Amino acid sequence: MGKVDRKYCEALDQQDDLAFLRKEFYLAEGVINMDGNSLGALPRKTMARLSNVMEKEWGQGLIRSWADAGWFEAPVRIGNKIAKLIGAGKGEVLVADSTSVNLFKALSAAVRLNQGRPIILSDDSNFPTDLYMMQGLASFCGDSLKVKVVRPEQILNALSDEVAVLSLTQVDFKSARIKNMELITKKAHEKGVLVVWDLSHSVGSIEVDLNGAAVDFAVGCGYKFLNGGPGAPAFIFTAYRHQSAAEPILSGWMGHQDPFAFSLDYRPAPGIERFRCGTPGVLGMAALEIGVDLFEKTKMSELRKKSVRLSRLFIELMEQECGDYGFRLYSPLNDKERAGHVAFGHDEGLGIYRAIKARQIISDFRPPNVLRFGITPMYQCYQDIFEVVRAIREVMETRAWDKPEYKIRGAIT
Amino acid sequence: MGKVDRKYCEALDQQDDLAFLRKEFYLAEGVINMDGNSLGALPRKTMARLSNVMEKEWGQGLIRSWADAGWFEAPVRIGNKIAKLIGAGKGEVLVADSTSVNLFKALSAAVRLNQGRPIILSDDSNFPTDLYMMQGLASFCGDSLKVKVVRPEQILNALSDEVAVLSLTQVDFKSARIKNMELITKKAHEKGVLVVWDLSHSVGSIEVDLNGAAVDFAVGCGYKFLNGGPGAPAFIFTAYRHQSAAEPILSGWMGHQDPFAFSLDYRPAPGIERFRCGTPGVLGMAALEIGVDLFEKTKMSELRKKSVRLSRLFIELMEQECGDYGFRLYSPLNDKERAGHVAFGHDEGLGIYRAIKARQIISDFRPPNVLRFGITPMYQCYQDIFEVVRAIREVMETRAWDKPEYKIRGAIT
Repeated sequence: MGKVDRKYCEALDQQDDLAFLRKEFYLAEGVINMDGNSLGALPRKTMARLSNVMEKEWGQGLIRSWADAGWFEAPVRIGNKIAKLIGAGKGEVLVADSTSVNLFKALSAAVRLNQGRPIILSDDSNFPTDLYMMQGLASFCGDSLKVKVVRPEQILNALSDEVAVLSLTQVDFKSARIKNMELITKKAHEKGVLVVWDLSHSVGSIEVDLNGAAVDFAVGCGYKFLNGGPGAPAFIFTAYRHQSAAEPILSGWMGHQDPFAFSLDYRPAPGIERFRCGTPGVLGMAALEIGVDLFEKTKMSELRKKSVRLSRLFIELMEQECGDYGFRLYSPLNDKERAGHVAFGHDEGLGIYRAIKARQIISDFRPPNVLRFGITPMYQCYQDIFEVVRAIREVMETRAWDKPEYKIRGAIT
Repeated sequence: MGKVDRKYCEALDQQDDLAFLRKEFYLAEGVINMDGNSLGALPRKTMARLSNVMEKEWGQGLIRSWADAGWFEAPVRIGNKIAKLIGAGKGEVLVADSTSVNLFKALSAAVRLNQGRPIILSDDSNFPTDLYMMQGLASFCGDSLKVKVVRPEQILNALSDEVAVLSLTQVDFKSARIKNMELITKKAHEKGVLVVWDLSHSVGSIEVDLNGAAVDFAVGCGYKFLNGGPGAPAFIFTAYRHQSAAEPILSGWMGHQDPFAFSLDYRPAPGIERFRCGTPGVLGMAALEIGVDLFEKTKMSELRKKSVRLSRLFIELMEQECGDYGFRLYSPLNDKERAGHVAFGHDEGLGIYRAIKARQIISDFRPPNVLRFGITPMYQCYQDIFEVVRAIREVMETRAWDKPEYKIRGAIT
């Protein structure tokens, strides 16, 4: 490949079959969102939909809208739409609560299905909240349940008949490395271990085939690649074969087989609905549904293709334009092993992140030194990538990262 | 009191110091919301606020809004506002998750503080989800934890040093009867029992003084009297004195003392923030805050006064207009014992509920035979009450309740 310039990127955009999707989003003038893996962009239709939910459904419909406007069914309805993106069947996915809470539901159900085995196994590349939720659950079980955290490469060796549940995140939140879900699940099952996969950085970004890999439980996030809005509700997947035996510890009334009978004893609903707990947040559900519906305009395989092209372009441009500035590719170079973001290590990562933020390029920094750039084929164009790399080069050339105020550690900012 | 007529109700409205609050709400023409204790009305400002959150904060601000638009602090900020309505201090209330999930947090923390005591005690008038959440928690603890449910009048006698936690709902969801929170809490503490109060039917409806009653934990709902919208986030109260010892079982990253350090081990945040779990739903938070802010326009004591007047008028008018039709007052007649709704038993309750719903009066039915009418002084006027009773009378006179299709049981409708 020769030198990549703006003209080349323009040409890529002109040939892009998915370019029409960008118009579905409200994108602020002059801002490039390279953090869609933290918070996806705002779909234009979300605003109209939420206005309607507020005025017509809530304001006029009042409590009647639980039935008349489909509020009650939303967790299952939207779950069925997400199911198509992750290789799950109808009635296997429910939208509810946060990812952390859903992970707790999945872990506790899985531990109970494998009662007597004392270990929840995970690895130290997992997203921290996943580890924390395991620790919280185990802390309540005295000596009967322990969390064991090993290095990612030790997972297969750590599987044993002592392990109740293996819980991993499919895509590493720092490096974007994709784990081999099918192989790991198979190896786990050979030891009688149930698996819980966190799809937070997978869903809407890479092709996922839960049932193809015979996964037991999964959870995932609505506010990243699904563009469901800040703090959007999350989802939980429970394979059909576990649904009648899996007992929710978070046994709220919405998961009761007859919530409006108001009986004193909990009896779980027959299918995935037993993983409902409290009353679902309707505003968040409505916004998430708009984001999820956008996936019906194309195929996950097409989005993934563009995602790979965007990230490869980014890596190549970084090599071409910033090759001398000490960036180390932290993500896998192999397209098949890299999901929906590109991360670079740099000793001045925090300052660089802040300097490009000052140039209206929104990326992400993960301590101690990882710069993350989200790749979101729904609304990014190839010229965005060109602009981002140009800005990084300018920051490096002018040492714009070298400001005292950029060196102070602080949450998110 | 003589015969109450429309003129009399008109006069009450003209003298009503809180009448100005009605204008703050979007109230559909011709519809009377007598179910504000299930779902409060839509504040007008909510629509503008949500538009702003979507376009400016999410669309333009993107991930930056977690810091710049106060998203991250929202759970504590709104919690502090709710604290003022329930006699709690600054930093004792957090907005998060659903009521059911928050109850689970409170119960598990309380059980752990009182480790070794094997019983969670409640009564059979409690809202079912509260009982279900207790059952879910206990089911995970084998023989070390059991749920004991007694009749309300047996609670004080059932307190013992075997009881870890007493968990009750302050206001009965069927009858609106107010429990003596102060006395029951005192008696519980005398036996070393910790208390968890559910304020779902109290907050924004009656004056609550959690710290005056030395309550340990409480939870409550955002979508009823707080007018936070369908499925609005709920809240949790933890008394200062328990905050450093209370260990959350739902130990998500947002409750970590340094969430963005991404460390592998959970260390709870110092104060109420340890009861955060996953990422808060920003749209729901924003809507709830508008609802809560409306309470700053008056005092809880003034709202309560009007609430009592409305409900007394309702009871008197029902006696005057419908005294011959077999309604039995299911709520306490004594104003001090009755909270924010009025319930009547009637053998044809389901049909009556549906017949008045056909007349655009939205009330509620709780099996087997209870009609519930929410009293919401923020947006109800005295003439509303007159209209409702007139409609009920018309339904009874014409036997409009006696339709075959009204006799079929079905969820919510």
